[in-house]
Amino acid sequence: MPRFRMTVEYDGTPYFGWQRQDNGPSVQGALEAAVRSLTGETVSIRGAGRTDSGVHAVGQVAHVDLSREWEPYKLRNALNAHLAMAKEAVSVLDAAAVTEDFDARFSALRRHYLYRIISRKARLALEHKRAWWVSKDIDHERMHEAAQMLVGRHDFTTFRSVHCQASSPVRTLDRLDVTRNGDLIEIRATAQSFLHNQIRSFAGTLKMAGEGSMTPKDVRNALEARDRKACGPVAPPDGLYFMQVDYPDVIPPRRHTKAETAEDMD
Amino acid sequence: MPRFRMTVEYDGTPYFGWQRQDNGPSVQGALEAAVRSLTGETVSIRGAGRTDSGVHAVGQVAHVDLSREWEPYKLRNALNAHLAMAKEAVSVLDAAAVTEDFDARFSALRRHYLYRIISRKARLALEHKRAWWVSKDIDHERMHEAAQMLVGRHDFTTFRSVHCQASSPVRTLDRLDVTRNGDLIEIRATAQSFLHNQIRSFAGTLKMAGEGSMTPKDVRNALEARDRKACGPVAPPDGLYFMQVDYPDVIPPRRHTKAETAEDMD
Repeated sequence: MPRFRMTVEYDGTPYFGWQRQDNGPSVQGALEAAVRSLTGETVSIRGAGRTDSGVHAVGQVAHVDLSREWEPYKLRNALNAHLAMAKEAVSVLDAAAVTEDFDARFSALRRHYLYRIISRKARLALEHKRAWWVSKDIDHERMHEAAQMLVGRHDFTTFRSVHCQASSPVRTLDRLDVTRNGDLIEIRATAQSFLHNQIRSFAGTLKMAGEGSMTPKDVRNALEARDRKACGPVAPPDGLYFMQVDYPDVIPPRRHTKAETAEDMD
Repeated sequence: MPRFRMTVEYDGTPYFGWQRQDNGPSVQGALEAAVRSLTGETVSIRGAGRTDSGVHAVGQVAHVDLSREWEPYKLRNALNAHLAMAKEAVSVLDAAAVTEDFDARFSALRRHYLYRIISRKARLALEHKRAWWVSKDIDHERMHEAAQMLVGRHDFTTFRSVHCQASSPVRTLDRLDVTRNGDLIEIRATAQSFLHNQIRSFAGTLKMAGEGSMTPKDVRNALEARDRKACGPVAPPDGLYFMQVDYPDVIPPRRHTKAETAEDMD
């Protein structure tokens, strides 16, 4: 069956998370329903990351197998038309034909996340549910310094949910940078894969470092404790964005027909 | 009565616009209700601009007269607490004590607006209701060139709503710049004051210039026609943000007590 890779944006606010479930709307469910209304097929769409309820995505990646060939831009446009009709807060940014070697989850080399904090006295209006509002002053340079304690290969037991299903708590964190632009503080995290709640656990702990209630050394000690109780409060999902997934260049695009290489147009 | 200036941010989506009205929620009404629940007073709050339904603000300015003195930061925090309780999409960013010479509307020297267009093939998910989605390619340099035809002192009859209540259609447009960052096209407009629907009329016409269906000369001709029918379609409110209001420096802050000059804190 022809396989397609899709890059997906969503506002996580109305969803119980990426993963399909019986008791509420999910992003995966919205995409699968769009395929069903487009082609009549009941498919299972696999995403690169199972984001939690309220977490947003700018560049989630998923794959789906369909029973027939599609010109990728037509598939994208048709899925978006069905998502629009269903008033879903989901958009397919891009579709591409790929070989069956491509698996959105297992082929991923690196995942990139962004966590946004707005530090100001006044509550959020425009950024409500799009960032974590912190009313205290926080020092982003202290946060960045503390973040560097976490970069590298570590046992991240302290920073994963007790519900995390990963077999090992060891991960290699490639990057955890904290920058500031006015009242917006951005935490950028990159790793091949993350544990459940790992970035929100980082964000909650780094905020304590930014407020001065933890030193960078305290953050290192929390990591080394390998104890969930050493973690700061988990930050809300509102500020978390799944930004991008990197895949090896060696996965070739599936050879496609001339029509598929035609200029991308409506 | 002590007068206070407030800087106000809002998500325009749930409101029928700035102005209080009987048949639906308004930003002015939300702020007046917050004052009422805080102090028991029924006040009339005046804004610098009467934004339409769905139009957002990052820096609307308003003033209000209260029966007693307030430390401005306490007033801001208390109003925000009441706005939060009422689940309003409005935030008071700043409050300041001002003399009765200050009038949010009539003292304004310049008003700054931003209109955001996202030009891409895929529908908007995260920016839904926060930008105008244009699926065709548009050339921002052509838009900027066309925009320069509109800068200066002109009769803007072509670019105002037939419902506009201003006595004169003549305005001086100080700035109309079009820039691009990836798929985001930003139109920035500055004038002492604007006519009803003027910026959305500009945006709709400039989009036609960007698509190639109007030349800069056509835009100049539309202006000179002084005919509402020469205007392109009015752009949706979703992309419009009231950014900032400039006031003369010579309006002195009201002399306030020591407590009011205390460090701004919760």
